[in-house]
Amino acid sequence: MANDLRLGVAGLGTVGTSLVRIIHNKARALEKRCGRRIIVTAVSARNRDKDRGIDLSEANWFDDPVALAESDGIDVFVELMGGDSGAAEDSVRAALKASKHVVTANKALLAKHGVELARSAEANNVSLNYEAAVAGGIPIVKTMRESLAGNDVTRVYGILNGTCNYILTRMEREGLAFAECLADAQRLGYAEADPTFDIEGFDAAHKLAILTSLAFGCEISADSIYVEGITSITTADIEAADELGYRIKLLGVAQRTDTGIEQRVHPTMVPKSSAIARIDGVLNAVAVDGDAVGEVVLAGPGAGGNATASSVLADIADIGRGDRAPTLGKSADELEPYVRARMRKHEGGYYIRLSVFDRPGAFATIAQEMAAHNISLESIVQRRRAIKSDAPGNSHPGEPAPVILITYETTEEAIKEALGAIDAQNVIADKPQMIRIEKLT
Amino acid sequence: MANDLRLGVAGLGTVGTSLVRIIHNKARALEKRCGRRIIVTAVSARNRDKDRGIDLSEANWFDDPVALAESDGIDVFVELMGGDSGAAEDSVRAALKASKHVVTANKALLAKHGVELARSAEANNVSLNYEAAVAGGIPIVKTMRESLAGNDVTRVYGILNGTCNYILTRMEREGLAFAECLADAQRLGYAEADPTFDIEGFDAAHKLAILTSLAFGCEISADSIYVEGITSITTADIEAADELGYRIKLLGVAQRTDTGIEQRVHPTMVPKSSAIARIDGVLNAVAVDGDAVGEVVLAGPGAGGNATASSVLADIADIGRGDRAPTLGKSADELEPYVRARMRKHEGGYYIRLSVFDRPGAFATIAQEMAAHNISLESIVQRRRAIKSDAPGNSHPGEPAPVILITYETTEEAIKEALGAIDAQNVIADKPQMIRIEKLT
Repeated sequence: MANDLRLGVAGLGTVGTSLVRIIHNKARALEKRCGRRIIVTAVSARNRDKDRGIDLSEANWFDDPVALAESDGIDVFVELMGGDSGAAEDSVRAALKASKHVVTANKALLAKHGVELARSAEANNVSLNYEAAVAGGIPIVKTMRESLAGNDVTRVYGILNGTCNYILTRMEREGLAFAECLADAQRLGYAEADPTFDIEGFDAAHKLAILTSLAFGCEISADSIYVEGITSITTADIEAADELGYRIKLLGVAQRTDTGIEQRVHPTMVPKSSAIARIDGVLNAVAVDGDAVGEVVLAGPGAGGNATASSVLADIADIGRGDRAPTLGKSADELEPYVRARMRKHEGGYYIRLSVFDRPGAFATIAQEMAAHNISLESIVQRRRAIKSDAPGNSHPGEPAPVILITYETTEEAIKEALGAIDAQNVIADKPQMIRIEKLT
Repeated sequence: MANDLRLGVAGLGTVGTSLVRIIHNKARALEKRCGRRIIVTAVSARNRDKDRGIDLSEANWFDDPVALAESDGIDVFVELMGGDSGAAEDSVRAALKASKHVVTANKALLAKHGVELARSAEANNVSLNYEAAVAGGIPIVKTMRESLAGNDVTRVYGILNGTCNYILTRMEREGLAFAECLADAQRLGYAEADPTFDIEGFDAAHKLAILTSLAFGCEISADSIYVEGITSITTADIEAADELGYRIKLLGVAQRTDTGIEQRVHPTMVPKSSAIARIDGVLNAVAVDGDAVGEVVLAGPGAGGNATASSVLADIADIGRGDRAPTLGKSADELEPYVRARMRKHEGGYYIRLSVFDRPGAFATIAQEMAAHNISLESIVQRRRAIKSDAPGNSHPGEPAPVILITYETTEEAIKEALGAIDAQNVIADKPQMIRIEKLT
């Protein structure tokens, strides 16, 4: 047996506590799987006196995570504090510099400083592992970093935020409004008191930024992501999607295009028959299209103490066994610069919901503007009330009624210009709703 | 850069040819991902003169795969010949003995000799990797061997045979009979001229035997698997399943029970809402229930030259990077003996289709026998023709009509005894159909 693998754990929240408990309960099994004992020799957290229900008697306590990171008593620094700066950043940098392996669940830190940290890990000949930073318990980082080594990836996409998926699932199943589902998510602990980070898509964007680098062997560029959250989605959209054979999911999508790499997080119409459409509630899923393998889909719990700790432990076990995969799949110096695709060139079908005044010629105006921008319509659905505006003899402007259009493949530019032109002619009551349709196999 | 990693490839069929082509086309990318060049220095196949459309000019040709396996000119022996004995077995044994790493896609060989080969790999300090042996392009071996290190697995199940899944999918979608779908599968190259191995469940059983060992840390025991193929499934079953909210899939299931480990391959009713129900056509999927992570599902192509080569390459890349995971997740000497659960104790719901004579008292007999064996019925569906047998005054025995019963949880023993008792009373025309219902989340 090799020497014990000594862990220093910074951050004893839900994940840190689960991790320490599992390591304690499964000591013997872990030893067999790693060929050496895994022991927690040092910990750090904000509150020393809190009873976490775990035995920390054999671990040295550090008030300062940076001191823990640099301590001689550890081989691996496990960062579970979170945040893209401050203590998390300082301690991870210090650990790598001190030639300690680092395991982290911190997506924000990786999205912001990943390439630089990868370079430091390489220079100090240690591992920087972060399976838990993307899609919780799903082994997507290892799959992309190791299992798809023989593939050129053309696209990666997924449901990367469990809070949004929970809200959309409840809205769909129960016909509840967004606000009501959000309140429930907060009550159940699936959403923070300030839910902005989740529901506006920023959390998904951080995870996507990491996946993009792994997929395309390029530098991480979280700032280049087009991000749109789910706050504008209504039950009317979800019902219309259902009728048309789709479900609405907040997807993160990264793909290679002729002009560079496109990264986007936004509500997306996915065909009901697709695997991703079946991912409900707080689950996450990631699909990767590789040129050799085809499409591989991984699904599972995207959050939760034990599920996240499972991924942290996998990273630790890799270090224990001596597996040293490069942080981002290859040497940081070999990463290509990130070249951003021109988003407005994105091509695909679109779902559009308009609130149309029941007024003569209103629908003709819409049809004319669509045609003028070379947008062909695959289907038109008028919901609840019929629109009589184009019927002869109807000259009394009425209440607005929803009209749903599904377009054939077109560009985002064309859609935006057409909607702008329609808006300028006073035929619609509200801001148009526009949801991209993703082509899935 | 480290030394080149030199491969000897034995078997140049679809997978071998794809592998050599990908290694040639992606030489530079693979070098970056592995930190060293991957080169094919030797090959062996039955026919030297065949034009495979790949460049073998720099590879030494061996007529004898065992000589290739022992050759000084290779670091890794890649076995793609297939078969659980003969050249495949001899050459893999020879390679390990000569301290060559082995990568194989050979499920039959692993299912039969896996533990012994694992012991040899360990003794000679080399890797034995076999990602492609289970579920083709899906990285399930790595996931179970490495990513779930912190979990005790309670159950693993999956769609492990693409041929059967293709046939069941076509039967369901098009209402075609089994024989017709099988003929199409053969015409399209999804099934062999002799399809027994696939449609009787033996191929799925080999894969399950390997997954079971990885899941529970026990020795491989392919002979202990209860195996039942899909040849008895009719469109009547598929239609009844659909009506009742289920789909029929050939599942391989392994789970821990009080009496030992249960391994079974059989047609299974899975709820339409489950992720596994959505896996159509030639795709495979594997779900693993871990005590820390919850349920993780991996889906993707289960066969095909490029998809399988993708997994073979992942195994090669691991060796290139120096990742040395134990063959079956821990040292072969640490594997627990396989203790077989008493299968007749398996508990769950059952689907039963009976062809019932339209005769006075027939249905009463069935209901009485079910009750006598403590089997409660969740639903009863009479299809096509109503059964009038229990109506007063109907004394003319008619043609048999199908009756479908869904039971609540019971034991297989009770079901078999009840059906035996029913059969003995001349109320049913054919052998009863019985399909297990799997409880899925």
